[in-house]
Amino acid sequence: MIPFKSPLFLKDQISATELPCHDNLLIIDRAVAKNMSPEFLRAFPFVYLVDAGENLKSLEQFPQNLSEILQVWKTNISRDHTIIALGGGSVGDFAGFVASVLKRGVKLIHIPSTWLAAIDSAHGGKTALNVQGHKNQIGTFYPAEKIYIFKDLLFQQPSERALDGLGEMVKMALMDTPPFISDLGDAVEESSENILWRYLEKAIAGKYKIVLQDPYETEGLRKLLNLGHTMGHALEVHYALPHGQAVTQGLFFALAWSRERAGFAEDDYEKILKVFAQLNLKSQIQENSFRPLSKETLKEFLLKDKKIDGSSLIDFIFLRAPGQAVRQKVSAEEIVAEAARQGWCQ
Amino acid sequence: MIPFKSPLFLKDQISATELPCHDNLLIIDRAVAKNMSPEFLRAFPFVYLVDAGENLKSLEQFPQNLSEILQVWKTNISRDHTIIALGGGSVGDFAGFVASVLKRGVKLIHIPSTWLAAIDSAHGGKTALNVQGHKNQIGTFYPAEKIYIFKDLLFQQPSERALDGLGEMVKMALMDTPPFISDLGDAVEESSENILWRYLEKAIAGKYKIVLQDPYETEGLRKLLNLGHTMGHALEVHYALPHGQAVTQGLFFALAWSRERAGFAEDDYEKILKVFAQLNLKSQIQENSFRPLSKETLKEFLLKDKKIDGSSLIDFIFLRAPGQAVRQKVSAEEIVAEAARQGWCQ
Repeated sequence: MIPFKSPLFLKDQISATELPCHDNLLIIDRAVAKNMSPEFLRAFPFVYLVDAGENLKSLEQFPQNLSEILQVWKTNISRDHTIIALGGGSVGDFAGFVASVLKRGVKLIHIPSTWLAAIDSAHGGKTALNVQGHKNQIGTFYPAEKIYIFKDLLFQQPSERALDGLGEMVKMALMDTPPFISDLGDAVEESSENILWRYLEKAIAGKYKIVLQDPYETEGLRKLLNLGHTMGHALEVHYALPHGQAVTQGLFFALAWSRERAGFAEDDYEKILKVFAQLNLKSQIQENSFRPLSKETLKEFLLKDKKIDGSSLIDFIFLRAPGQAVRQKVSAEEIVAEAARQGWCQ
Repeated sequence: MIPFKSPLFLKDQISATELPCHDNLLIIDRAVAKNMSPEFLRAFPFVYLVDAGENLKSLEQFPQNLSEILQVWKTNISRDHTIIALGGGSVGDFAGFVASVLKRGVKLIHIPSTWLAAIDSAHGGKTALNVQGHKNQIGTFYPAEKIYIFKDLLFQQPSERALDGLGEMVKMALMDTPPFISDLGDAVEESSENILWRYLEKAIAGKYKIVLQDPYETEGLRKLLNLGHTMGHALEVHYALPHGQAVTQGLFFALAWSRERAGFAEDDYEKILKVFAQLNLKSQIQENSFRPLSKETLKEFLLKDKKIDGSSLIDFIFLRAPGQAVRQKVSAEEIVAEAARQGWCQ
């Protein structure tokens, strides 16, 4: 088994020269491939172009995708071969799953092309497919053998994508021991991209610190990484927000609730709100750019995976203090009540 | 991760009382279910009936099968839940794969219903699906948490199924240190079923001894378990032989070749042929019950997975002496020439 902490290579410029192209398969987001140099693409004998997005992760599409991969990858594939996944989260989830099951597991290299993937999803070995539209119902734990992060590839993205990255970056900073979060606030004279690039390794190291204590998410510890994700996911789905921006909103919610319920200190709260403001991360409630969810919609969403067993308890991640995330069981009703109090639903 | 050596429970009578039925899913071969008591089946709140065979392992069918499983298993499935797989090899391969990917891995219990599964496929953690008719192209390494072997369940099988089991049993005895193989020969006054039951644990222990040295089949050691399988698989496919009986024929081939090429001693060879005869395992060549393959068919079969890369070298397992299996690269041409010499093809 490949160890959970994948060796990380940060480089300024993308290049195929140090990648194991020979005989291996590049799975690449079609939109990203358009921006790559012909030399880069030509270096790979076998290329499978995919359209990023949730449809790529559909189990119903998977047999067709896999059969195309076997047609494209014209070699006697063995477990020593490598799949190189170049793209954002959905491409990594899909290609990672393929790598984990093909021939009972070929090697895997991630090259994240989005800030979100570079900070978060490329690390920690989770792969996933969706089943009939339900996200991540199947998957594997299958860490990449190596992860390459190329600065020029990340900076190619439209600059609003940096806002997505900042959501997960701030989350990692909040979970890390201070002064990570205040350092982020001090960097405000710079562009969001420069801030992300500067703190990328630190955020990744923070994620590994948690993942390595609970690689298969059996101890509950790894769930702490879901800070901001409960409400974030609801907003992501209902307002089609980009994941990172939804997480930012979820962090506003979780922090305000942590102040009420987990003893998060008022002065820390004020400091963190200042960091958010310095990074140009705004609460949609404060901005009035937000049509509140109905209480029923939110409750239904929170419970939708709880089907039959009658339990409506949900793992919610609170912050006791910067660097001290804790998991508590709360009811869907409590979340809805707090969301109403804060103005997220009515 | 579950350890590769699964705790083994051998019992005389099948019973649901010590199985974790509550909230868990039984995946069971429909044909086996017909012979189970209503009490046994009623003990499971969620049952998914499957038709054993290669079609069950089809990736193309997998999305449909998985969606049916999610409909049947009406609970809030978490990674603490268990799939109990009751059936032969195909049921175990399928249910094991489902368990390994659902929610990134739920728990798995195997209850093999065939001798072959009880001796071989239930142990060692290999799961598999077929892709467009090509066997075991995808899969996972996912050992069961527990394996229950029930004597009455195995003895329910038609007694010709014991012949299948004897193939893998003799293979394990040949790979084990003597006197396992001669002990088998000494047990001839008994029924094949009684012999299989008596030596089951010893054969399983022999398999684990190899698997534990190379759980992910990265060191080549685990491939030694393919003794008898190269020619065996060709005969299995071309004459629709049951797997275990095909392995028996493959063992005749491998032993005769080992005598020529790997220094397998003549007197050991004679002794082993005597054991085969005592167990009523016959070489189809000696019996003249065999229409030889054409050389072209055999060569094509041996190379079919070697597609593009031009290498026609195949890992063949020889026996230097009882208990001393070795792996050597041989060309398809060499296998065909030896098969012609022995009369398996012409």
